[in-house]
Amino acid sequence: MLSQVKTHTFSKELQLTSGRTLPEFCLKYETYGRLNKAGDNGILLCHGLTSTAHAAGNTSHSDKGWWHMAIGPGKALDTDRWFIVCIASLGGFGGSTSAASVNPETGTPYELSFPVLTIGDMVEGMKALSDVLGIRKYHCLIGGCMGGFQVMEWLSRYPEMVHSSIIMGATAKTSAHNLALWEVIRQAIYLDPDFHDGNYYNRQLPKAGISLGTMFGMLIWMDRSVMEKKFGLNLLDGKETPDYTLDAEFTIQKFLQDIENSPKGVFDPNAFIYLTKAMDYFDLERDYGSLSKAFSRVKGRTLLVSFDSDWRYPEEEIDKIRLAMEKNKKPVEHHCLHSSFGHGTFLYDFNCGLHELIPEFLNDDLLTEGQKRLGT
Amino acid sequence: MLSQVKTHTFSKELQLTSGRTLPEFCLKYETYGRLNKAGDNGILLCHGLTSTAHAAGNTSHSDKGWWHMAIGPGKALDTDRWFIVCIASLGGFGGSTSAASVNPETGTPYELSFPVLTIGDMVEGMKALSDVLGIRKYHCLIGGCMGGFQVMEWLSRYPEMVHSSIIMGATAKTSAHNLALWEVIRQAIYLDPDFHDGNYYNRQLPKAGISLGTMFGMLIWMDRSVMEKKFGLNLLDGKETPDYTLDAEFTIQKFLQDIENSPKGVFDPNAFIYLTKAMDYFDLERDYGSLSKAFSRVKGRTLLVSFDSDWRYPEEEIDKIRLAMEKNKKPVEHHCLHSSFGHGTFLYDFNCGLHELIPEFLNDDLLTEGQKRLGT
Repeated sequence: MLSQVKTHTFSKELQLTSGRTLPEFCLKYETYGRLNKAGDNGILLCHGLTSTAHAAGNTSHSDKGWWHMAIGPGKALDTDRWFIVCIASLGGFGGSTSAASVNPETGTPYELSFPVLTIGDMVEGMKALSDVLGIRKYHCLIGGCMGGFQVMEWLSRYPEMVHSSIIMGATAKTSAHNLALWEVIRQAIYLDPDFHDGNYYNRQLPKAGISLGTMFGMLIWMDRSVMEKKFGLNLLDGKETPDYTLDAEFTIQKFLQDIENSPKGVFDPNAFIYLTKAMDYFDLERDYGSLSKAFSRVKGRTLLVSFDSDWRYPEEEIDKIRLAMEKNKKPVEHHCLHSSFGHGTFLYDFNCGLHELIPEFLNDDLLTEGQKRLGT
Repeated sequence: MLSQVKTHTFSKELQLTSGRTLPEFCLKYETYGRLNKAGDNGILLCHGLTSTAHAAGNTSHSDKGWWHMAIGPGKALDTDRWFIVCIASLGGFGGSTSAASVNPETGTPYELSFPVLTIGDMVEGMKALSDVLGIRKYHCLIGGCMGGFQVMEWLSRYPEMVHSSIIMGATAKTSAHNLALWEVIRQAIYLDPDFHDGNYYNRQLPKAGISLGTMFGMLIWMDRSVMEKKFGLNLLDGKETPDYTLDAEFTIQKFLQDIENSPKGVFDPNAFIYLTKAMDYFDLERDYGSLSKAFSRVKGRTLLVSFDSDWRYPEEEIDKIRLAMEKNKKPVEHHCLHSSFGHGTFLYDFNCGLHELIPEFLNDDLLTEGQKRLGT
């Protein structure tokens, strides 16, 4: 499969929702497959909060990519047919402009002087890059979690660029519980003595606070029954009776304490702050007055996917997107898939039904409604 | 109602499960009502993790007490009839011997050199005080959460002292999820720069870490739907559009950030560490080989209460206590009450059915099985 890793620098200003601007910005991205001459076989993958542009491909990365199971010749996202694009989110961990970047006006990293971004601002960046790449119209936008938020912003802002879209595990606005979750993790970051108000790029990366936040998140996103089955009250080293000390004695304690030293747990805390702030502000109802107004200009078909174990982004809330689309007489379908992986199902349990549903939707989209009714 | 607040100091050694000893210890306690001559009208209240001996009464306390709604003349726990005893847990916040106490061997506070306690150790202290008070046999032991753990230890260790017992929202062993919750809150305490490895009694009380732990706990013990209803995505000061800054802009953020400055949020972090460690080690199956062995010597009747919204101490796990009692042919009943208050139902929603169930059980206990069958 042809895959490329590139960075594009825009020397033009990016106007932000907050009223502030980025004087220049760069976006790191990966592509898989080839763009056709018509510029209409593109599929844009919008990644989740903790992912990057590295979705698949034999790049210099040591990991396979967050959706390697989905992308490749003959796979759900067939690279012989589609031109897959994945762009590292503005403000995030993946190498695009963020708080870690040098502010051209000062010559030093932005740190916490970086402007607060919205999901809409991220989409503006993606749109600019899509134009550079020669994409006339995306055959499909696909996004889960924060990526799902981005897909909805695309549908509101640039509906003419979107032939169809797939939104997984994402509601049309965030929730008080998600806001609370991100706030508590940010407070853990702020408490870290190594954080220094975000000014740490020339010192050691503050790991303790964000690791504590991840430990905490583990209790929110790992199902209680899964945790019981995996760890129970097992003592370390197969011991049968505890020593009654302040040290870690249980396997679950050790698992949590080890997060701090896991290479997967090392994120830039400043980027985490900006990404979660962007999610906090996501509310299409507030921005457009109502969901049906937000989606009034949608052109293509929409596939909504919820996961029955994802209590943070529940089926009934995702279904509000379906209702808004139907109010606008837009073709939409909503599937709730069964999995025990909760919100992370699209990353960790692709075989829960996504592997069939996605290519079916991508192909089905090529048939007319009339052909489908005739069963041809 | 006659109420008293006292502290009793034991100059004898307390042998602990860990093999270590406390050379001396004191217990702070409150009583409501009068002990009868036979010494058999006592009801021992075993408090939950964050409570103290102050359950009710017009004492010097500014608050009414954690179970004031239940205790008093004519109330569920009728002080005209019963002698109610509530003892601040060893190792806890309530003034009994803890990490904050002076180690008589060094003349300085124990801090983290305080020995790890078990729920059983706490019960040994309570038993010693009950003997001092002249209690021959408790008419009833009542406990929720950690207090429920203590009731079960009483039933295993001193069944002859217990005429009947009520266990609310407590399983016969802790869970991996509870262990994880306490571990994460302890890690938040450790991260607090004011914690100084527990050596802070002559400096300022470390508040940030334990407050962060409480914020975090709020997401575990406040139901998502309650949080949505109470806060939603409401902006502060009734604003309709956000300013897109790093400051708190949503009511839920402010609510969480304010925990640090709430007088209710100020606990001694060292005590929190020791109480949660004691809960971590609670596992009657490990200690006795099986639950039915743990309860083989039980004499009286047991009332088990679960709450349908308490997913951390679920009905089906509490029901294992019923099965073990029945295996031993001990009279037991299990009621699952409806409430939206989750684990804290016994503290915050006494009218969910507890106000009727408890006095019924206390009185019913005076009838013989034969009388009950005849409906007299």
